[in-house]
Amino acid sequence: MTALSAVVLCAGKGTRMKSKKAKVLHAILGKPLCAYPLKRALELGATSVVPVVGHQAESVEKEVRALFPQAPLTFALQREQRGTADAVRSAEEALKGFSGRVLILYGDVPLLRKETLASLLAAHDAAGGVLAMVTTVLEDPTGYGRVLREGGRVTRVVEQKDASPEQRAVKECNAGIYSVDAAFLWKALAEIKPNNAQGEYYLTDLVELAAKQGPVGTVVADATETAGVNDKVELAARAKVLQRRINDAHMRAGVTLHDPDTTFIEEDVVVGSDSEVGPGVSLTTGSVIGEGVVIGPGCVVSASTVADGSVLKPYSVLEEAKVGVRNVIGPFARLRPGTELAEDVHLGNFVETKKAQIGKGSKANHLTYLGDARIGAGCNIGAGTITCNYDGVNKSLTELGDGVFIGSDTQLVAPVQVGDGAYVGAGTTVTKNVPPGSLAVSRAPQVTKEGWVAAKKARRAAKGG
Amino acid sequence: MTALSAVVLCAGKGTRMKSKKAKVLHAILGKPLCAYPLKRALELGATSVVPVVGHQAESVEKEVRALFPQAPLTFALQREQRGTADAVRSAEEALKGFSGRVLILYGDVPLLRKETLASLLAAHDAAGGVLAMVTTVLEDPTGYGRVLREGGRVTRVVEQKDASPEQRAVKECNAGIYSVDAAFLWKALAEIKPNNAQGEYYLTDLVELAAKQGPVGTVVADATETAGVNDKVELAARAKVLQRRINDAHMRAGVTLHDPDTTFIEEDVVVGSDSEVGPGVSLTTGSVIGEGVVIGPGCVVSASTVADGSVLKPYSVLEEAKVGVRNVIGPFARLRPGTELAEDVHLGNFVETKKAQIGKGSKANHLTYLGDARIGAGCNIGAGTITCNYDGVNKSLTELGDGVFIGSDTQLVAPVQVGDGAYVGAGTTVTKNVPPGSLAVSRAPQVTKEGWVAAKKARRAAKGG
Amino acid sequence: MTALSAVVLCAGKGTRMKSKKAKVLHAILGKPLCAYPLKRALELGATSVVPVVGHQAESVEKEVRALFPQAPLTFALQREQRGTADAVRSAEEALKGFSGRVLILYGDVPLLRKETLASLLAAHDAAGGVLAMVTTVLEDPTGYGRVLREGGRVTRVVEQKDASPEQRAVKECNAGIYSVDAAFLWKALAEIKPNNAQGEYYLTDLVELAAKQGPVGTVVADATETAGVNDKVELAARAKVLQRRINDAHMRAGVTLHDPDTTFIEEDVVVGSDSEVGPGVSLTTGSVIGEGVVIGPGCVVSASTVADGSVLKPYSVLEEAKVGVRNVIGPFARLRPGTELAEDVHLGNFVETKKAQIGKGSKANHLTYLGDARIGAGCNIGAGTITCNYDGVNKSLTELGDGVFIGSDTQLVAPVQVGDGAYVGAGTTVTKNVPPGSLAVSRAPQVTKEGWVAAKKARRAAKGG
Repeated sequence: MTALSAVVLCAGKGTRMKSKKAKVLHAILGKPLCAYPLKRALELGATSVVPVVGHQAESVEKEVRALFPQAPLTFALQREQRGTADAVRSAEEALKGFSGRVLILYGDVPLLRKETLASLLAAHDAAGGVLAMVTTVLEDPTGYGRVLREGGRVTRVVEQKDASPEQRAVKECNAGIYSVDAAFLWKALAEIKPNNAQGEYYLTDLVELAAKQGPVGTVVADATETAGVNDKVELAARAKVLQRRINDAHMRAGVTLHDPDTTFIEEDVVVGSDSEVGPGVSLTTGSVIGEGVVIGPGCVVSASTVADGSVLKPYSVLEEAKVGVRNVIGPFARLRPGTELAEDVHLGNFVETKKAQIGKGSKANHLTYLGDARIGAGCNIGAGTITCNYDGVNKSLTELGDGVFIGSDTQLVAPVQVGDGAYVGAGTTVTKNVPPGSLAVSRAPQVTKEGWVAAKKARRAAKGG
Repeated sequence: MTALSAVVLCAGKGTRMKSKKAKVLHAILGKPLCAYPLKRALELGATSVVPVVGHQAESVEKEVRALFPQAPLTFALQREQRGTADAVRSAEEALKGFSGRVLILYGDVPLLRKETLASLLAAHDAAGGVLAMVTTVLEDPTGYGRVLREGGRVTRVVEQKDASPEQRAVKECNAGIYSVDAAFLWKALAEIKPNNAQGEYYLTDLVELAAKQGPVGTVVADATETAGVNDKVELAARAKVLQRRINDAHMRAGVTLHDPDTTFIEEDVVVGSDSEVGPGVSLTTGSVIGEGVVIGPGCVVSASTVADGSVLKPYSVLEEAKVGVRNVIGPFARLRPGTELAEDVHLGNFVETKKAQIGKGSKANHLTYLGDARIGAGCNIGAGTITCNYDGVNKSLTELGDGVFIGSDTQLVAPVQVGDGAYVGAGTTVTKNVPPGSLAVSRAPQVTKEGWVAAKKARRAAKGG
Repeated sequence: MTALSAVVLCAGKGTRMKSKKAKVLHAILGKPLCAYPLKRALELGATSVVPVVGHQAESVEKEVRALFPQAPLTFALQREQRGTADAVRSAEEALKGFSGRVLILYGDVPLLRKETLASLLAAHDAAGGVLAMVTTVLEDPTGYGRVLREGGRVTRVVEQKDASPEQRAVKECNAGIYSVDAAFLWKALAEIKPNNAQGEYYLTDLVELAAKQGPVGTVVADATETAGVNDKVELAARAKVLQRRINDAHMRAGVTLHDPDTTFIEEDVVVGSDSEVGPGVSLTTGSVIGEGVVIGPGCVVSASTVADGSVLKPYSVLEEAKVGVRNVIGPFARLRPGTELAEDVHLGNFVETKKAQIGKGSKANHLTYLGDARIGAGCNIGAGTITCNYDGVNKSLTELGDGVFIGSDTQLVAPVQVGDGAYVGAGTTVTKNVPPGSLAVSRAPQVTKEGWVAAKKARRAAKGG
């Protein structure tokens, strides 16, 4: 296989985004626009990938490096925005010595599929020339560069403004995405002249130069794939297409989505077959959902794992949490980072966990906060239980053994331990460790004042009068 | 009226569903696919309905019987999957002695409307022959069996692969849905031969045989009605059509849906006029909503009733609950099975009820759990109140009279009773019954240590130093 | 500029709405249908606006006056529903003495844009005649009045039933929206005769009369702008178009909407650039969102302000609340009226506030109710804290100084004050003021009964046996 590299143009400002943020850093489905073409290039085996940065170069580089910490990236700076040819040329130094093919991609064209790019490379091989290009066929091609052919062979691209009426009738348009032999590329770029009022260097001139060297390979892509992003209306439109594509793939693989139009699954999320996902659900940041999982309406699951057969009832919010098999969670449960639940755990409504390990079969079903806690198996945590993990200065740990019963409205003042099988009475403030098998309670005796209400009313009436 | 029976084909595996579950058991809007044609047949007065089962016969039969416990169902087993004609033939024994008409329906074609089937029967009557069929007119009929006519009369159906170019130009397609005279049906089925490579027996051959006996009645249906389900993308697409149909009917009847695209109302749900339903709401499992009810965004209402003039604020979750007139519920309220609210009850945010009867005008507005409770009229339940209904072994009842005031953060340790007009102080653990009109409180005296914070800081600083 | 007035027809019953409420009072995106054309007329500088009311005249007038308390409105009553010409004529008295132009609008046509009406007035100017009209071009104009022209000049409008075949081929239709010189209008209306079976007076006859006086100005509008509302399916459809229009405008101005299809922003809401709004969010009733704000999925924000850089995590519900800069709110937080948060405040899950002022950097992160409270800066409010603001008769205030630490599960029995830097132990019922820098605690000592669990089991077993 010919060695592959890629140049990804990420230098544009994106004025119409009306944002302080560089265009390619705006996200769809949780990832910056430029992450998509960069990932595609890496998936295809590019051994060197050159993001060409310009506007906000530093922040783009920083964010891209964070996204692909291991990737063979070399950033190139385009100092002035002088057109796409100039932008690619900025990458020459970074690819010095590379002698294979260069994919030319755009940081603001997120939807191009890996399969299309693989076809582009195959078309390059098949044609045997120095360049292959992606084209799209548009019902209304107005404004796009038309692909001119003679006897089927591509000869050049003509821009709308320069096109004759017959040329304007051509519906095959240039998507601007190329695979180019490196040796040809750098030589050709040096020949391209700014042929327009703005003094910009356009990459489309490459095609005519390449056609003189040999046949130009082409692959036709759907227009939804090659569409860029120029404002936030387009950003949302591209997100919708990607969402649909991801959701369709999950459905075809056996996941039931109750309403794919309102289900938001990021590209790197895994969902097992026979799982069901309700409307309004977001699954993000590499979450892994097992088989036969039921995720109710409105759940938000980020960077979490949910094992087979578990149920997330409506409006459960998970972040960096690990949910074991056959758990029953929610509704309105919030699992924060460091939550690790064994099998058969039940967490109910208005329950929050954070850095909490909870053992098999334990339950906390109502109005509870479990933070910085290690809880054994078979525990029953009553409604309104609170781990007092913070004293204003330090955070401390609450440890419960197996089979512990915590009465409702208990405060566990950490650091504190409750031994196996112990029982804590309702309303207790647990400040000292509770030995295994014992009862702990802190309770003032109940005092009943009969007739008190009538007396109080009388006093009030007297005051009022 | 001619006697009616129905055969509903439910034997298919549905490989492309990629599921352990039989295809016809996959649900749209809360009910298995096959429930829809079965219900239609019963609505039209079929006196005998024969689901033909095969793949996972047992579980299909079990689930269908549970859905229609009273219906005149006889299950027939198709041992091998040898085509649709063979499948219908499997039902012959079950319909022995039946001499009227047989509707032939499909367990994976859920959207066929009752009105269309009634038209099919009327077309059967009007034509006066032995068979009537549903057809659809498709702009692109590629792949479908075309309905051939001579002088307007249907003569037969030709499959795509056998069709001449002129026949392929026909846009009227066979939907495969028939009303057939029983006597003709069984005789004709015996004549059908496997005429294809797979050795399968195709039902379409019926049409030609019927056309020889007399005129074939036809009714044209919209393609959305006759579409089947082959994978989970199609499952979601069918659900969307059904959702829209149900929602439109509610809107035409006077229900305001703020966003019908994200409102999920199952077929057997009732909603009164002038009620308003917000986006993201699910109304399921036979719920009955009164008139002038306001249901805020994201509410999930299952198997519940909500009486006239009540308001469900956003994200209220109801399951097997009864809400009286003019209640104000939520946001973030969760009403679990056995909740029964009288009129003018208010349940606020982060409030959970279960097996709780609550009297007229009572309020529990914040952070409360009321489980296994009988609460009178005019009570005020303070924030953070918890019924301690479970001691680790048994569940017990909490009973409050009328006009009771429960101070915040009270635990009611069941079994326990609080009499009419009694007052419980904040933070009390109620372990003994409280007589009517009395005050109950369990409270350690508040101790104040002045200067404690400075002293503690000094100690800490000393330690640190 | 010629003086402008407007007549807005609001008299219709709207039978197909199936509602007790008058048609024009049904809302889209939070405002009654008629509020839209009324607002447009006022925005264009109409010095006198006449809503013509009829059906439920009183409630329509009442609601409209409440919506536009300062506007120059004069209500006119149409006693019988005798057609649109009769309806406009009802406004003559109210506009007595007015000598400029009269805009004729409809209370059930909500989507007409200000820009289109401005173009209508410009077209009126340009043509120099007595009338200008809005037209739409429809692919299928069946049923609509066609605009007839001779040599480009409008001559009259012909209704479908009266149109010749050539006239029916005309695709330009009358939208019924006019700008008319007042002097001409009242004279012409007096000439219009009921020319139909129902004895109704139709406004379309105005066009022919006007064309005789001079050129009729026209402006073509999109059909989505001029569409009316006749039932609740149409109500929802119009809402969708408005929603899309509003959302597109926000996106073009730099707001990121993750899913504009499920984002509900009312017309008078402000959102700063670089803010992000998740799916399922509602922003209503004049809410003002700053720049760089992140609003997570499902938040409901009504009549509230959220200052720059704040984050609303999923499912936060705000009503008449003020959120300062860099706050972190939710998920599942509920901010009720009178909540005022300074900068850097954190309110976490299952936290409710009402009439609560909270100072800079204070935190209440879990399961807390703060009602009728003034809280200083730098406070830490532990999980499960409750302000007991209601004693069954009166509501009282809780006041916390700066730097206060409230331990978990504390009840603050109002009226009560906790001084600067004070510390309240977990589970305390605070009934007396706590001086600055002191510790307050009310706690029964923890009693531990070792072996209690085994003993209890033995007792139970003995009973059972």
